[in-house]
Amino acid sequence: MQSFIYDIPTKVYFGPNQIDNNLSNELKKFGNKVLLVYGGGSIKKIGLYDKIINELNSANLQVFELSGIEPNPRHTSVNKGAQICKQEDIDVILAVGGGSVIDATKFMAAGRYYNGDTWDFLIGKAQFTNALPIVSILTLSATGSEMDTGGVITNTETKEKLGNSHPMLRPKVSFLDPTNTYSVSKYQTACGSADILSHIIEVYFYSYDAMYMLDTVMEGLMKTVIKYAPIAISQPDNYEARANLMWASSWAINGFVGQDKKHAWSCHPIEHELSAFYDITHGLGLAILTPRWMKHVLSSNTVDKFYQFGVNVFDIDKNLSKMKVAETAIEKLESFLFKDLNLSDNLTKLNIDDSHFETMAERITKDGPLKGFVDLSKNDIIEIYNACL
Amino acid sequence: MQSFIYDIPTKVYFGPNQIDNNLSNELKKFGNKVLLVYGGGSIKKIGLYDKIINELNSANLQVFELSGIEPNPRHTSVNKGAQICKQEDIDVILAVGGGSVIDATKFMAAGRYYNGDTWDFLIGKAQFTNALPIVSILTLSATGSEMDTGGVITNTETKEKLGNSHPMLRPKVSFLDPTNTYSVSKYQTACGSADILSHIIEVYFYSYDAMYMLDTVMEGLMKTVIKYAPIAISQPDNYEARANLMWASSWAINGFVGQDKKHAWSCHPIEHELSAFYDITHGLGLAILTPRWMKHVLSSNTVDKFYQFGVNVFDIDKNLSKMKVAETAIEKLESFLFKDLNLSDNLTKLNIDDSHFETMAERITKDGPLKGFVDLSKNDIIEIYNACL
Repeated sequence: MQSFIYDIPTKVYFGPNQIDNNLSNELKKFGNKVLLVYGGGSIKKIGLYDKIINELNSANLQVFELSGIEPNPRHTSVNKGAQICKQEDIDVILAVGGGSVIDATKFMAAGRYYNGDTWDFLIGKAQFTNALPIVSILTLSATGSEMDTGGVITNTETKEKLGNSHPMLRPKVSFLDPTNTYSVSKYQTACGSADILSHIIEVYFYSYDAMYMLDTVMEGLMKTVIKYAPIAISQPDNYEARANLMWASSWAINGFVGQDKKHAWSCHPIEHELSAFYDITHGLGLAILTPRWMKHVLSSNTVDKFYQFGVNVFDIDKNLSKMKVAETAIEKLESFLFKDLNLSDNLTKLNIDDSHFETMAERITKDGPLKGFVDLSKNDIIEIYNACL
Repeated sequence: MQSFIYDIPTKVYFGPNQIDNNLSNELKKFGNKVLLVYGGGSIKKIGLYDKIINELNSANLQVFELSGIEPNPRHTSVNKGAQICKQEDIDVILAVGGGSVIDATKFMAAGRYYNGDTWDFLIGKAQFTNALPIVSILTLSATGSEMDTGGVITNTETKEKLGNSHPMLRPKVSFLDPTNTYSVSKYQTACGSADILSHIIEVYFYSYDAMYMLDTVMEGLMKTVIKYAPIAISQPDNYEARANLMWASSWAINGFVGQDKKHAWSCHPIEHELSAFYDITHGLGLAILTPRWMKHVLSSNTVDKFYQFGVNVFDIDKNLSKMKVAETAIEKLESFLFKDLNLSDNLTKLNIDDSHFETMAERITKDGPLKGFVDLSKNDIIEIYNACL
């Protein structure tokens, strides 16, 4: 188990109507000029946009707007936001949306203090020296960006999807109102839930000493997603289901559960290439990849962790052989993802063939094997992609 | 499930040797004058005192000292500390010890800004207007004071043991080095573990809608204590055991797991009267009381929560009747507390008889029944005390 520094100071208002008064009070702590960033029109449809504008106006905050942030947010949008922050001398960014919007604002916030293309933060050319404060209002339970330090941005010119992180990008305050996710479609609810589950799986599967306590927390978070995602899909306005998914999304990836590990993720980098090439929904890509990755890395060396996963998350009979439990656990995960969540179970259904697999695997392993629970060579990754067809 | 505000900004350095450089850097953020507060000589015995003094001296911090904080810290000690803070214009308090020391510094920190007896904070006569920042170095896994907002102080003149809390009392930074607990005796390790477990039980047993996700986290924390406390007792320098207990102690009570509940605790107020009258160790009192309280409140109305507790924490066969699972769970808890932890299983062994039970129960219920998982009348409480003989 590694030593660590726990430092997750994001303040969260959880529950309905928490933005009343609290939103403007929190924003004012940082100044008067607010850049409101959002995606498409969904926040207008659910009445959230009007509610926010009323709240900000009645508090005499000066509001600038940037809408149209893409589902896989593009560096060109980030550049636009950073430009507005500079021109208008913005004090605080208010991100309203899901992970895409919040991710984009993170690099706008840093871009405010950088003279150059914000893409430089993703390719490691620019250093994080300062960032505007971010306040978020979450409308989709998935990426956990509302409480974490990272973001993922797509460059459609280079067909690259890259992530980076820094503590100064963590939102200062986030408003989590489960009722704001009532209108999220069945499909997006399913993809978001697969994303949350994947974040936990990426940390949970680990080859070295881990802190048992944090494993138990992760098992609880996984059980939460597995229990409530199907309920949220069949009953979109079930508060209990939406609330559990929302709080689980934050804790899956805010840093708490993986602090004792120097972990390297496996499925996320493999998926990022997929969605960089094909612009598919991140959570869907993860759902298709994860069980194939599991089958690829399951062996007598790794079976113990799968056994723990099967017994503690899927309640599989602990008296079965370890390998039997492991295989059953993967089957149960598939059943959850492809039956309960009703997600497409292969890439062929998404009109994706093997034509770019070689290039994608090459890009992932350009600096050597992909380190993780089990290190993966270029060929391993191609095999995993092929198993997804 | 209740709405809530999550705001737990304590920064934690976890692991061995984290105080090197980090301690002085963190203290300096608040100023140059440090009041070092500790209990008896144990921090000298383990070499921690010298290490701290060296660290502070080499950073040119000006150090004042207050030692001798009692295991059940007294308001007279708190007054002394507050007095030093005023006289010497202290910038930051460094608490080195277990919950007693950290609890005491919380009211010193507030007392710095109050002209009067610090006991006034406990009886509600004084308001919290400001408080000095607190940095803590934890040496005992038990109360969770290192990351929470509250503290409990004893007034030996009035035989009262009272608690109060305020967000401004939460330590800004805490250093959690599991190796600093290697020298904690078997008995204190047992009492501390019983205390951690009790904090979770107090929140877990709740009559209304609770957030499932947080229940799973609590079940994980309870399993962690039950797994590692016996290991820490038989192998005092087992890092894994000490680390899991330490981090569990913080998360049991920092506020996270109970945020969706307007919870009222049961065993703690009943125990506080016990230790106010008899100065027994808090964790031991809780260990003796908790199973008796459980038996007293178990009924067909409350059996569901006990069933969940039995199945998910003690892995009892879920196919048994709910009442059977509940009763078995209480037996298993008793076995853990009195066999695995080797704690005394009744008050008679502590030379306590029923002579003050009436008075103690009267004090607890002076404003009406004790609200909680099941509301308790004066007679209920007397029955619970009597069951402890």
